[in-house]
Amino acid sequence: MGGTEPARPSGPLIVQKFGGSSLASVDHMRRVAARIAADRAAGRRLVVVVSAMGDTTDDLLALLRRLASRPSAREVDMLLSTGEQASAALLASALTAIGCPATSLTGWQAGITTDGVHRKASIRAVAAARISREVGAGRVVVVAGFQGLGPGGEITTLGRGGSDTTAVALAAALGADGCEIYSDVDGVYTADPRVVPEARRIPRISYEEMMEMARLGAQVLQIRAVECGLVHGVTIVARSTFAPGPGTEIAGVAAVEDRVVARGVAHDRDVAKLALCGVPDRPGVAHRLFAALADAQVNVDMIIQSQSRAGRNDIAFTVAGEDLERAEETARGAASDLQAESVLAEPGYGKVSLVGAGMASHPGVAAAMFAALAEAGINIEMISTSEIKISCLVRGDRLEQAVRAVHAKFRLEAGSA
Amino acid sequence: MGGTEPARPSGPLIVQKFGGSSLASVDHMRRVAARIAADRAAGRRLVVVVSAMGDTTDDLLALLRRLASRPSAREVDMLLSTGEQASAALLASALTAIGCPATSLTGWQAGITTDGVHRKASIRAVAAARISREVGAGRVVVVAGFQGLGPGGEITTLGRGGSDTTAVALAAALGADGCEIYSDVDGVYTADPRVVPEARRIPRISYEEMMEMARLGAQVLQIRAVECGLVHGVTIVARSTFAPGPGTEIAGVAAVEDRVVARGVAHDRDVAKLALCGVPDRPGVAHRLFAALADAQVNVDMIIQSQSRAGRNDIAFTVAGEDLERAEETARGAASDLQAESVLAEPGYGKVSLVGAGMASHPGVAAAMFAALAEAGINIEMISTSEIKISCLVRGDRLEQAVRAVHAKFRLEAGSA
Repeated sequence: MGGTEPARPSGPLIVQKFGGSSLASVDHMRRVAARIAADRAAGRRLVVVVSAMGDTTDDLLALLRRLASRPSAREVDMLLSTGEQASAALLASALTAIGCPATSLTGWQAGITTDGVHRKASIRAVAAARISREVGAGRVVVVAGFQGLGPGGEITTLGRGGSDTTAVALAAALGADGCEIYSDVDGVYTADPRVVPEARRIPRISYEEMMEMARLGAQVLQIRAVECGLVHGVTIVARSTFAPGPGTEIAGVAAVEDRVVARGVAHDRDVAKLALCGVPDRPGVAHRLFAALADAQVNVDMIIQSQSRAGRNDIAFTVAGEDLERAEETARGAASDLQAESVLAEPGYGKVSLVGAGMASHPGVAAAMFAALAEAGINIEMISTSEIKISCLVRGDRLEQAVRAVHAKFRLEAGSA
Repeated sequence: MGGTEPARPSGPLIVQKFGGSSLASVDHMRRVAARIAADRAAGRRLVVVVSAMGDTTDDLLALLRRLASRPSAREVDMLLSTGEQASAALLASALTAIGCPATSLTGWQAGITTDGVHRKASIRAVAAARISREVGAGRVVVVAGFQGLGPGGEITTLGRGGSDTTAVALAAALGADGCEIYSDVDGVYTADPRVVPEARRIPRISYEEMMEMARLGAQVLQIRAVECGLVHGVTIVARSTFAPGPGTEIAGVAAVEDRVVARGVAHDRDVAKLALCGVPDRPGVAHRLFAALADAQVNVDMIIQSQSRAGRNDIAFTVAGEDLERAEETARGAASDLQAESVLAEPGYGKVSLVGAGMASHPGVAAAMFAALAEAGINIEMISTSEIKISCLVRGDRLEQAVRAVHAKFRLEAGSA
């Protein structure tokens, strides 16, 4: 260990992603640069994906909205993509200034092409020749995240949090040895620590569990990036930029050997419940209702259909609280078409979910969860289940209590790893 | 005039350029958008080139310098080019918001390619197919100025004021019917109005005269844009964004029919004079001195060589005051090589220049200028002349008086147009 840095690192190829809060100021930039330079000095070959600095994206959008109340998605992309480009140029310069050779690339220079859907593009392909050339020449490549080139040479962005997806897609295209997503959170927890103080960091979690833990993981890692990791088999490590620690590893089910019954408890605030009551029992009824809701851009979460009496059904479903107004309007239109007897629409619910890849092979998990809620005197309004998740709708004012009750019931604070 | 705007204007194709001070705020943007929309409503087909908003470029550079004292020119270009891109997206959105269809394009999307020299690239070609298609579809095309794509897919900038050059180059490539450069100055004046209160706006000026008037015109129009106009025969109109008025038209000598003896008086503050005295009279002496200065990135302006006595010459030249230290160091090195007897280096001079395309065919112009200075009791330190210009070096503390004396002598306040 002579202290000299390698001219051309030849160790593992790692894609690292740093979010806006890790790059919020000149001081943050310097600290991130020092971190990257140390990794390179240790022999790692690095491709670094960056978001826009701090609140840049929000600031640009606010400026735009003062000029145009409904700006076109194309122009939003033209505008927002500058944030990541500037961030990449600044970080590459900061690296070079401390003796760590680096070069920045825009999304299109990095060879990232998309399907061309403005503001929510999907990455179609990564032609990584340029990146590989730069890395081969011993440089750290800093790629502007969140963007790629659509058909016709249009700049497209991947939607909020798209930089995580950029990182995972680059790791897949480069056949990287690792993909590290840095943020100001040190991993995924068994529950939101603000709600459950004894919640514990999860060391390893499967892609599928991570997606179900979406709401808890959103600060740590974007769900689309997890999907991308699942599709391409890229193991992702989510960790804190400035607090050392192992973080949370997101990998395939096979790699996550401890298929526990209960990995964590997720929750979702501000859920609204709607119901069409007394709908004639005819084929195509559900299709017409939910097609109308989809047309109105309403995301429906839980759905329950029950037979209330001969020939008449009740159809209940939940939506995000912010979509209630739109959903109710659409539901009332559909109710009239479908000759439903009445429509109910109620805000103020919450959803508590127990997630664990092992629950499918362990009977009694659902029963234990319902018992936990019952013991706490909390009424369950709706239930939905998947192979790796049980969700219960409860009154919003009981939600946090419900999370703590389920977390305690499954002894998640003790942990298995 | 029914007040309805044309779906597809079919009138003259005009390239307009708006500088950073015209786009300094949301309010400025709105006013520029209203101006452009009115022009489009009048039937003009428009391509608009924009600079970065207000002080964006300086702010980005200041941020960069905090991270890297000597950032690479490549990364500076990656960073700075975002300013114009953001500006273009914002203006296109502001236009669309007021019912004027518009689309923004980056330099590379606009088909602008350069020689690849970072921070001072020259435009090599403009493939205007995309612009023509957008204009043909009835849209105002807003192009990010100051940038183009170099070989190898690198983003390059054209150097300060490069947006003016972008506009003129686009006008040439599109065969536009006009090129209008908007700034916060309403044209080129016969002298700096702060020095000569009775100075008059010049309605028409030739490219060559405009280039000689460089220092006075710098706020109005970049010199490289004038050169580009000269090469491609693009008539340029420089006018104020928010003050209505005809501005100054810059065109070919033939088009500027009134080839006056005296178009205007330019001046240059903070000039330094250097001299190598007693240099042996041998071939190659001047070459060695000025090659050394060029290597040291010193721009030399006036040069005079005089024979002081048999076999020995004096070589005097001027440089910008800020280059004096570097120039003196280089001159002392060269003086030693060349066996010069001494070196003089003096700051504190100024240069006054009379510019006029007609002076070559009018004898006595130089004599009249010298008379004006003599009558004011101002000593002339050095003289240099061209076909369309006479420059005199004077003591800096007499410079403004010299400008007023020459302006008055040629009755420039009266004007011929």
